[in-house]
Amino acid sequence: MDIFKKTRAMFHLPENMTYLDGNSLGPLPYAAQNRVDAMMRDQWGEMLITGWNKAGWMDQPSRVGDRVGKLIGAEAGHVVMGDTLSIKVYQALAAALELNPSRNVILSDSGNFPSDLYMAEGLIRMLDRDLELRVVAPKDVASNLGDDIAVMMLTQVDYRTGRMHDMEQLTKLAHNAGAITVWDLAHSAGAVPVVVAAAQADFAVGCSYKYLNSGPGGPAFIYVAPRHAEVVNPALSGWLGHASPFAFDLNYKPGSGIERMRVGTPPVIQIAALEAALDVWDMVDMQDVRTRCIELSELMITEVEARCPDLTLASPRNSTERGSQVSFAHEEGYAIMQALIAHRVVGDFRAPNILRFGITPLYVGEEDILKAAETLQTIMDGRLWDRDAYKTRARVT
Amino acid sequence: MDIFKKTRAMFHLPENMTYLDGNSLGPLPYAAQNRVDAMMRDQWGEMLITGWNKAGWMDQPSRVGDRVGKLIGAEAGHVVMGDTLSIKVYQALAAALELNPSRNVILSDSGNFPSDLYMAEGLIRMLDRDLELRVVAPKDVASNLGDDIAVMMLTQVDYRTGRMHDMEQLTKLAHNAGAITVWDLAHSAGAVPVVVAAAQADFAVGCSYKYLNSGPGGPAFIYVAPRHAEVVNPALSGWLGHASPFAFDLNYKPGSGIERMRVGTPPVIQIAALEAALDVWDMVDMQDVRTRCIELSELMITEVEARCPDLTLASPRNSTERGSQVSFAHEEGYAIMQALIAHRVVGDFRAPNILRFGITPLYVGEEDILKAAETLQTIMDGRLWDRDAYKTRARVT
Repeated sequence: MDIFKKTRAMFHLPENMTYLDGNSLGPLPYAAQNRVDAMMRDQWGEMLITGWNKAGWMDQPSRVGDRVGKLIGAEAGHVVMGDTLSIKVYQALAAALELNPSRNVILSDSGNFPSDLYMAEGLIRMLDRDLELRVVAPKDVASNLGDDIAVMMLTQVDYRTGRMHDMEQLTKLAHNAGAITVWDLAHSAGAVPVVVAAAQADFAVGCSYKYLNSGPGGPAFIYVAPRHAEVVNPALSGWLGHASPFAFDLNYKPGSGIERMRVGTPPVIQIAALEAALDVWDMVDMQDVRTRCIELSELMITEVEARCPDLTLASPRNSTERGSQVSFAHEEGYAIMQALIAHRVVGDFRAPNILRFGITPLYVGEEDILKAAETLQTIMDGRLWDRDAYKTRARVT
Repeated sequence: MDIFKKTRAMFHLPENMTYLDGNSLGPLPYAAQNRVDAMMRDQWGEMLITGWNKAGWMDQPSRVGDRVGKLIGAEAGHVVMGDTLSIKVYQALAAALELNPSRNVILSDSGNFPSDLYMAEGLIRMLDRDLELRVVAPKDVASNLGDDIAVMMLTQVDYRTGRMHDMEQLTKLAHNAGAITVWDLAHSAGAVPVVVAAAQADFAVGCSYKYLNSGPGGPAFIYVAPRHAEVVNPALSGWLGHASPFAFDLNYKPGSGIERMRVGTPPVIQIAALEAALDVWDMVDMQDVRTRCIELSELMITEVEARCPDLTLASPRNSTERGSQVSFAHEEGYAIMQALIAHRVVGDFRAPNILRFGITPLYVGEEDILKAAETLQTIMDGRLWDRDAYKTRARVT
């Protein structure tokens, strides 16, 4: 597929490195470097305060939000960028709970990001009503959708195994049970085709520094379904979510639709990096990215299983149930991943025993997969990892 | 004062522009441009995910927080960067309320940022207990410190007039009355000498894009007094405030001290800009900056009052009661400021009638003050502002 040679050339990839960790931090798009440099010089430097209007900084969170919205199948005008994913989880969950005030359970699963569960914990403590966070196994979510569930809050793609929930099906089941849905798309946006509108998701949130390549600490996004957008009452009622931020009224009045999910001053420099990083998506079709991702993932599984019998596939074998990563389990996974990184093949480790590899066709090709599998075999065959590092770590955790 | 010629040379200032709006957005430090460019290329580009440790991204919010802490007189290890000022207000206020659970009034004043009041409104709605936000005139704060006040939440320097509260005195009065204090230092940090530790302030928050020159959307900071730091229970319980973010426990356990006030992934690129922007403060003493600021402010007042009799001083005449800005009132202030900006003298307008000028000695000198006063006189004498723009605006607001 020639297009992926073109997209690969748009990224800076360190020499002699095989990078399979784009599910944690995407690599630097040359366009992002150039855009930020120009933005700082020509906009911040020359326009100064007038940049808010002249350079469009004020509209940037919605303008860029719309481009992210296309990647997750959102209606135009219903996604906005800002803050961090944790903050957006808090906003979405608070709003969702308020839409379903007579119920008292937040249903989530043990495949969710712990950070999402932490934010829910804090919110529950704040709300000081009889709320329960019920965390079940991923396979048991559907059967737990009883008439006490106020909100079903899930991360679509499991950050450890890559196991992917069926968003359309679970959303339908949740709605049938009278629950509101909050989807975390951190490992979905730019990773797999997502259709929040078609799935009738109520809220969706995600980050941009993984598959969207916006750089460390890039802004998060939030989607609110059109049917809720003018109804929700923001918990984090910030001035940029106000109907008239520059009227400086002493009382809060929520802005129109998704604008009310803005909070404080947006991180203009980081959003500029994202805006440039999104250009690559204009060149590719998400379905083609997905097809290529599956090809590469199948290759990775085949090669690693053939070469490294001691590693156990931790991702679903069925590609339709798997996001854009492949994971293997090994008791000494931490030390093995350290050795792999020392050999310039970069994936990451997730406790307790997961070796995780992001499969990102925009800049990863067959040669990378083969290189990773070969290097992994060298390490496994030669037992080239540090057994003591493993023991040290085992004692700490 | 020669040192201010040196500091001025560290900023990019547009040609033929007199910039008196550093209280809204500081100008571009050359060091920030260079640092961000290098950080993107050498850290994000080359280190990728390993930058979190190798390049110190993980410690960056505390490391840079300590440098901001010096400027506000905080104890080392008690300031952390991240999020936006609105989010930090929410965190501080939630924590402050929890420290004083038997009382139910948040006392603030009409000189506070409306955005801080909005965040308080949202928080009160969330908490769903019998809380009241009581907003009084700035001069009436002390006399309202009764035994029902849970939290006194004030912005030290009024964003419109520059009127400055006596932080030490009001904090003492608040404590005597049994209240916890939350200080917003958005117009104080880098503007006036601040001593949060000596004043025994409980919580302080602020932003970095004004007097600290970190660029549009730069990160906010939060200070928690050592006596509270291990006690407060974060409302926004994010994974980077967790005791062990990478243990991926399913339950939240607050991190040590100020670390628990971190929420999500920090905006590494924006903090890098701030980190470089802070270098200028190593060259100057805050008291010298203050002395110079008062000299320039007095000059501005004298010159404008002599040249423009139709403008009324809206800032306190007594320099000890004034922050790092000078404001004038005029019914047609909006149109006058537009004309001034068209003449390349940049201040800003704040409703309903305030022309606001930031006095920032790091890059503003006497020649700028004289240029501004002369230009203002030209506009006032010639009535060079757009009367219709004024009428249009009057109709809209």
